[in-house]
Amino acid sequence: MSVTAPAGFRASGVIAGLKESGRPDLGLLVADGGASAAGLFTTNAFPAAPVTVSQRHLLSGRAHTVVVNSGQANAATGEAGIEDSLGTCAAVAEAVGGEADDVLVCSTGVIGPRVKMIELTAALPGAAGELAVDGGSRFAQAILTTDTVSKETVVQGEGFAVGGCAKGVGMIAPRLATMLAFLTTDAEVEPAILDAAMRRAVAPVFNGLTVDDCTSTNDTVLLLASGASGVRCEGGSPELAALEAALAEAARDLVHQIQVDAEGATKAVAVQVTGGLGGDAASVARAVASSMLVKTAVFGGDPNPGRILQAVGASGVPIIPERVSIDLAGHRVVTGGVMVSFDEHVCAEALKERDVAIEVDLGLGDEQATAFGCDLGYEYVRINAEYTT
Amino acid sequence: MSVTAPAGFRASGVIAGLKESGRPDLGLLVADGGASAAGLFTTNAFPAAPVTVSQRHLLSGRAHTVVVNSGQANAATGEAGIEDSLGTCAAVAEAVGGEADDVLVCSTGVIGPRVKMIELTAALPGAAGELAVDGGSRFAQAILTTDTVSKETVVQGEGFAVGGCAKGVGMIAPRLATMLAFLTTDAEVEPAILDAAMRRAVAPVFNGLTVDDCTSTNDTVLLLASGASGVRCEGGSPELAALEAALAEAARDLVHQIQVDAEGATKAVAVQVTGGLGGDAASVARAVASSMLVKTAVFGGDPNPGRILQAVGASGVPIIPERVSIDLAGHRVVTGGVMVSFDEHVCAEALKERDVAIEVDLGLGDEQATAFGCDLGYEYVRINAEYTT
Repeated sequence: MSVTAPAGFRASGVIAGLKESGRPDLGLLVADGGASAAGLFTTNAFPAAPVTVSQRHLLSGRAHTVVVNSGQANAATGEAGIEDSLGTCAAVAEAVGGEADDVLVCSTGVIGPRVKMIELTAALPGAAGELAVDGGSRFAQAILTTDTVSKETVVQGEGFAVGGCAKGVGMIAPRLATMLAFLTTDAEVEPAILDAAMRRAVAPVFNGLTVDDCTSTNDTVLLLASGASGVRCEGGSPELAALEAALAEAARDLVHQIQVDAEGATKAVAVQVTGGLGGDAASVARAVASSMLVKTAVFGGDPNPGRILQAVGASGVPIIPERVSIDLAGHRVVTGGVMVSFDEHVCAEALKERDVAIEVDLGLGDEQATAFGCDLGYEYVRINAEYTT
Repeated sequence: MSVTAPAGFRASGVIAGLKESGRPDLGLLVADGGASAAGLFTTNAFPAAPVTVSQRHLLSGRAHTVVVNSGQANAATGEAGIEDSLGTCAAVAEAVGGEADDVLVCSTGVIGPRVKMIELTAALPGAAGELAVDGGSRFAQAILTTDTVSKETVVQGEGFAVGGCAKGVGMIAPRLATMLAFLTTDAEVEPAILDAAMRRAVAPVFNGLTVDDCTSTNDTVLLLASGASGVRCEGGSPELAALEAALAEAARDLVHQIQVDAEGATKAVAVQVTGGLGGDAASVARAVASSMLVKTAVFGGDPNPGRILQAVGASGVPIIPERVSIDLAGHRVVTGGVMVSFDEHVCAEALKERDVAIEVDLGLGDEQATAFGCDLGYEYVRINAEYTT
């Protein structure tokens, strides 16, 4: 069900012929009564055309329809790309109803090529005709690129629901948002409160995700609230707190699905850093999760604390070595900045699990952050040495 | 000849039994008449014990002997590691002559284990006995870890020479220095002038090197000037300019040797960024050279400009997309921030060369910088998934 689990949404996913693989490549998500909407977007200095257009259309805090194409990212396409994204919104408004300004647009695929507008426009009436309250999974399918599985989530709240889907396998290291992720809820929330809730509950989770420390030009997270449940979330209300908890849970669920389907990944790595000060915890967590030497060690099932220590020390944040301790898969491996002996055999066994935990205590403050990564194996190299041209 | 090419130096390299492979693992470099000395060290917040001890011993600006062991990095070893490094210096002074304070010490290998002091101390008299004016290559051999070849260089100046050797294959992304590199010259230079010359001529080259964006705990570059040529380099003199040019050439030569011997690398990638402002050129160059997606594309011989553009945009520096142009292997692929069509077949052919050039013009100022990297292939994963435990 994913994005159509909350009341007030219909979705569809069809084959428009944008992708050479012949798989579904065009998705529509419609809030028939309109929705409060909030977005998080890439901080890459070359934002793709659909990012620029969606940011513009989000200024009203309201949206009616989300359209997503896979196959072409419509990035580095200049003014022509902007025209294509605006043209897509206009064609969607014509096929679905509503105003072009109330359409949010996302694209994913290869950077450089323009969207195949003729195929896209021709497929829109069919996609509109297939819109259904059980169409969430077909929408989730249509947004994929090299993903091997679709990523969907549903979290039931008290009288409301949160649904979501996402795509993303490579070029993933969001600074403010991530690949493409869509969250819906039938809670009733004013745009400004929805935006704040998203930044509090959703942003830290997606910001903690890194597959290859490469920030895409197209990263987008959209959150639509239809209000159809009648559960109203005022600022500071227990309903809003419950919504934020459900949003965070849905985001964490999608991020974990992305971790285990990351290009070439065999393991999900969670790097939890405690004892930080002034934003340092997140920097250290990201540095450890992004380290190629840590990632290959996890892939090899090699308990190698020196590489974790290296990444902590090279992260650029002020550290007092004597206060640092590190746990790997539940085993204390560094105390006071010094390597301690541990049972390497037992630790190596623990590293065979699909989920690997790395815990770093900086011993400086009470800030904490978690980075969500994966290992680096032969498959990542194969996929990325062969992708495209 | 490497470090013994300039007059005034003797060197040796022996098997002390520190490495399990049974290869040479202990090197001595001696300036019999003493030498002006300068160093560049890792900026990792967990500096290894020998880094701390060498920094202390360099305060005088003079050195007599350099001792290097491979096999154990003596990092994350706490106070015991400091005692080991100080003990090494004392044992070297006893075996070679001179004061312990005039000994610089370097270690490389696995992070965590302490140096095998019994084996090292026992091997020192033999290493001292084998010191020879043609011992440079044996010294260069003794400092290697997973390097497949030794890296040596000699640059002849007007009346003086510069020699050098280096090791380094992984955990290489110096912020201020790099792995282990040793440069010698028989020019006559005061310590303060030597230090400034090193920061101007040598630091930018080693700072531009990245294999895996992982900054080691042990990175050290040492430069010793014996003065034995009688060519005196005063501040602002043409002799000093000639020395700096020779130092830069020697550093560039060693860095290129490290690039092509980097773990799993099949190609050397030079990312030249022009048109920068305020230090941004170096940041962008480093970001492109470190991008896992750029590195795998080069490995696959895939002309993929979108990944280069992604890395430029995600580097965190302020960019005006409309001013950015990118050349890949001599082919213009991006103009004004927009992908342009190019002959992919011809470009793919050019990517088969061992040396690959990526040029980025930011179009903002007149600053320029080059990062020296390599591709990312299956072998990097194999080596680092299997290394250690």
